[in-house]
Amino acid sequence: MYRTHTCGALNTEHIGNTVKLCGWVQRVRRLGGMVFIDLRDRYGITQLAFNEALNSSLCKAASELTRESVICAEGLVIERERHNTQLVTGQIELQVRAFELINAAQTPPFTIEDDTDGGEELRMQYRYLDLRRNPLRQKIELRHRITIAVRNFMNQLGFLEIETPVLIKSTPEGARDFVVPSRMHSGQFYALPQSPQTFKQLLMVSGFDKYFQIVKCFRDEDLRADRQPEFTQIDCEMSFVTQDDIITTFESLVQHLFFTIKQIQLEPFIRMDYAKAMSLYGNDKPDMRFDMLIHDLKPYLCGKGFSIFDTSEYVSAICVSGAAAFTRKQLDELNDWVKRPQIGAQGLAYCRILEDASFKSSVDKFYNSSDWQNVATFMKAQAGDLILILAGPKEQTQKALSELRLEMGTRMGLRSNSTFSCLWVTDFPLLEWNSGDPNLPESYRGRWHAKHHPFTSPKSEDIPLLKTNPGDVRANAYDLVINGVEIGGGSIRIHDAALQKQMFETLGFSAEVAEQQFGFLMHAFTYGAPPHGGIAFGLDRLCALFSGSESIRDVIAFPKNNSGRDLMIEAPSIISAEQLNELDLKIKS
Amino acid sequence: MYRTHTCGALNTEHIGNTVKLCGWVQRVRRLGGMVFIDLRDRYGITQLAFNEALNSSLCKAASELTRESVICAEGLVIERERHNTQLVTGQIELQVRAFELINAAQTPPFTIEDDTDGGEELRMQYRYLDLRRNPLRQKIELRHRITIAVRNFMNQLGFLEIETPVLIKSTPEGARDFVVPSRMHSGQFYALPQSPQTFKQLLMVSGFDKYFQIVKCFRDEDLRADRQPEFTQIDCEMSFVTQDDIITTFESLVQHLFFTIKQIQLEPFIRMDYAKAMSLYGNDKPDMRFDMLIHDLKPYLCGKGFSIFDTSEYVSAICVSGAAAFTRKQLDELNDWVKRPQIGAQGLAYCRILEDASFKSSVDKFYNSSDWQNVATFMKAQAGDLILILAGPKEQTQKALSELRLEMGTRMGLRSNSTFSCLWVTDFPLLEWNSGDPNLPESYRGRWHAKHHPFTSPKSEDIPLLKTNPGDVRANAYDLVINGVEIGGGSIRIHDAALQKQMFETLGFSAEVAEQQFGFLMHAFTYGAPPHGGIAFGLDRLCALFSGSESIRDVIAFPKNNSGRDLMIEAPSIISAEQLNELDLKIKS
Repeated sequence: MYRTHTCGALNTEHIGNTVKLCGWVQRVRRLGGMVFIDLRDRYGITQLAFNEALNSSLCKAASELTRESVICAEGLVIERERHNTQLVTGQIELQVRAFELINAAQTPPFTIEDDTDGGEELRMQYRYLDLRRNPLRQKIELRHRITIAVRNFMNQLGFLEIETPVLIKSTPEGARDFVVPSRMHSGQFYALPQSPQTFKQLLMVSGFDKYFQIVKCFRDEDLRADRQPEFTQIDCEMSFVTQDDIITTFESLVQHLFFTIKQIQLEPFIRMDYAKAMSLYGNDKPDMRFDMLIHDLKPYLCGKGFSIFDTSEYVSAICVSGAAAFTRKQLDELNDWVKRPQIGAQGLAYCRILEDASFKSSVDKFYNSSDWQNVATFMKAQAGDLILILAGPKEQTQKALSELRLEMGTRMGLRSNSTFSCLWVTDFPLLEWNSGDPNLPESYRGRWHAKHHPFTSPKSEDIPLLKTNPGDVRANAYDLVINGVEIGGGSIRIHDAALQKQMFETLGFSAEVAEQQFGFLMHAFTYGAPPHGGIAFGLDRLCALFSGSESIRDVIAFPKNNSGRDLMIEAPSIISAEQLNELDLKIKS
Repeated sequence: MYRTHTCGALNTEHIGNTVKLCGWVQRVRRLGGMVFIDLRDRYGITQLAFNEALNSSLCKAASELTRESVICAEGLVIERERHNTQLVTGQIELQVRAFELINAAQTPPFTIEDDTDGGEELRMQYRYLDLRRNPLRQKIELRHRITIAVRNFMNQLGFLEIETPVLIKSTPEGARDFVVPSRMHSGQFYALPQSPQTFKQLLMVSGFDKYFQIVKCFRDEDLRADRQPEFTQIDCEMSFVTQDDIITTFESLVQHLFFTIKQIQLEPFIRMDYAKAMSLYGNDKPDMRFDMLIHDLKPYLCGKGFSIFDTSEYVSAICVSGAAAFTRKQLDELNDWVKRPQIGAQGLAYCRILEDASFKSSVDKFYNSSDWQNVATFMKAQAGDLILILAGPKEQTQKALSELRLEMGTRMGLRSNSTFSCLWVTDFPLLEWNSGDPNLPESYRGRWHAKHHPFTSPKSEDIPLLKTNPGDVRANAYDLVINGVEIGGGSIRIHDAALQKQMFETLGFSAEVAEQQFGFLMHAFTYGAPPHGGIAFGLDRLCALFSGSESIRDVIAFPKNNSGRDLMIEAPSIISAEQLNELDLKIKS
């Protein structure tokens, strides 16, 4: 037996006991005739004491231990002279009689402390060392607690966790698939699932009624900030349900998690349809921790001779409470900010409402005090507020204004990560016109594209529009948005073979391709399919939210970098000629 | 809301209530002026009753429903005239007022009954229908209960479930990897993990102390009976442990599962070293539900003029209690059985001990009664027993005798699948000489090969043999065998960089290849690595064992067939020229 206790276990009850501890040398301190070592493991830190007077060679050996070395020490638990109230074990220390150096450590490439001096790339390369740091370790532990809580809650609700296959078939919808060449079937490939979508639907056709799975999914995308080629979903599906049933069920899951993990009791979540979210927030995943709603100012500011506004498709504003004190310099900087390519606005107009209720705007030439008074009344703006106005083409400017709203929320301190505001966004459009998403292969562009996925059910009253006006068809689809982050999304699915076929037609699939790719699903619908729907949560994002992490990389034990590489094991890598040969493959260039 | 109750929920307490039920039409019966429908869902069956006198058109519509159609029915819960004690809901029925045909089913390709008429291929193709059958559905439910029980038990023991990556690096050890071409890094590949081995070891280096994960693993093998290209492991690792600690911990897990899932309290498991298992059972995974030990008869049967025995390397026997009554015809058939290529013996000799304690053998020419008496005494054989003898080259004949033992166990009814005998086999050889396993690429043959894997620690007293006599080195490795099936296996790992390097040398890795493939692990060992070890259980096999299934396919929702194909979705399949292009790949032939 290597140890009798962990480094977080000993307290005054153990005084007088002889124990064995194992762990990592966090710190070595010499103090007069004593050497003290902080011995660390996952459970805590215990102080080891060596007395030169008692055993000078042992004391010397201890003093020579390098940081991060692994040792096993035996000794007597004694009371500390001065208690350390910061540590659970702070009342005792181990008077060491003997220790074994199990594994000597060379100097780590960065310090293993809560605040480290290591750069991100270096820490990715030595991820196993970075994971020793408390902040990261605690996030991985939190992730474990979240998944246990999810599973037990779902189990109590009667959901079955069922594993679906990882080696499936490549399908021409959504993002790019990762593919896996088959050695046994030359020239053929498996694909890795972007989600278990069709399988969970088949489980509903099988009658499993309530399914969930915490499951790895894969997407071969050009990685944007905070995406990973492999990510984890809490994937769920239910039969004989309406949108309301799903929302109620999974709102209870999320409330349970907040209560269990963070001891936060959440109010019932707000619900808002897509159209309203876009008009009030310019965004289908609004951050609801603060208001700062978007107001359409065309009726107030057009036709007054300011040609930029007069010729713009979209002229809208937000009111930032208490920001009238922004200096000219700050406002100029904000103007530069909105014009950055990532934001994409053409320029910023503003109006300050001063303490004396007078107005000072950047476009005073065109508008008088009464114009601004009307605007202020409409926007419920008050003395001390700042009105920020963007104008331009609708889609682009709406997006920019939404970004500006978030930026102002941050600057005004309205986005604390210990506040949580949960929102269901509903009634998404079923389809969107895909002009040129670079994440899609060429052949998928320039046609109607499923906003959620091709199995999403249109609202029954909108089905006739599928043929006449596809862009206006609303879906039985919903997202869960927390603090402006899309944490989950789902839909009621099509369960009728004919409607599914029509959907594929609308999406530009030939009958042959639809049959070849999704024939199994459409056939399944002819043998008795229940109405069904579901949702999938991004576990990585949920864990990042719960742990207050900036990046999902912090809650993944071994993440990949922004170009999809694992810097620690150096993957991807070349494979042998023999392997390629067996797969009947050749690298072209 | 589609339903107020499930089809397993109603009983006499609900009599008089108006309810809504949804489900599948299991059966339609006409009886006088009545129509009865068995409505089925995952939770049970409820009888729907339609009375022609009350509503003849409704009754007619009900009588025309096809099997497996999905309906939603509303009506009054009434007491049945005759209770059906076979059903939980057998005391009531639903007097239907109205129903909606949600999805009409065409005739399924096989009957959805406990005993179906469908062949295996057909049922694989329509897996979503096969999964509706009770026996299969119950196995998938059992699998869910097992994984929940595993997770909660491990959580209580302080293990953290940590996800390891699926897109990793191809390594030239073990079976073949499935690989995944990288689009972003042309000519490079990820590999799918055969196990999370190196990652879980790195988690120990990180200090996570106790890790587990229920995780998909992948092996590109020529599939033997009952293997799947993707399979699920309960993967575990612990720090600061000896072999004994691991065995104790995971014996408690398996006992917990048997108790929780099957209400069986198991005795402490037997432990036996590899050498003893091979000598007593001819097998490193003996079925311990019955004895029938192998006895070496060379001292008794050689040198008596029977040249086949005299010239054989191995002459051994088993004693089958109470089988002396086997007829000549049965024994001839058994002789044919052992000579089949799968068994590979050269022929069977036998000796029956008759009721009068006389002997009747197939080699009476060479042995007299006193010879057999000596054999019988040695083997503790009694009147009524049958001694079966095989002779030939050791390895091959030992294997054949082991197979014969299992076959006789089966024939004598000694292998009930409601009896469970658990065994730890320990002290496996560290290495085995790999002459030509067809599951390995050419380049891996004709050299020493790790029996478990290259990270397994040799017994410290055997380390000197690594250079002189590698085949004699024993490993700190152990398997858990239940009823002759290897359910789990593991080892104490190497945690010292120098020893790991030496191990790679013994396995014939050049220093460059070792560094390129496993440099990250050896480097990790220089920054403070704890002693560690672990185990992995085959979840599929465990579930098959618990559910009494012949094949692991029965406990996998969507399995692949013996050539690695998913017959339902038709994978693997060809991919588009555009996809190949983007991956910079070409199919050679």
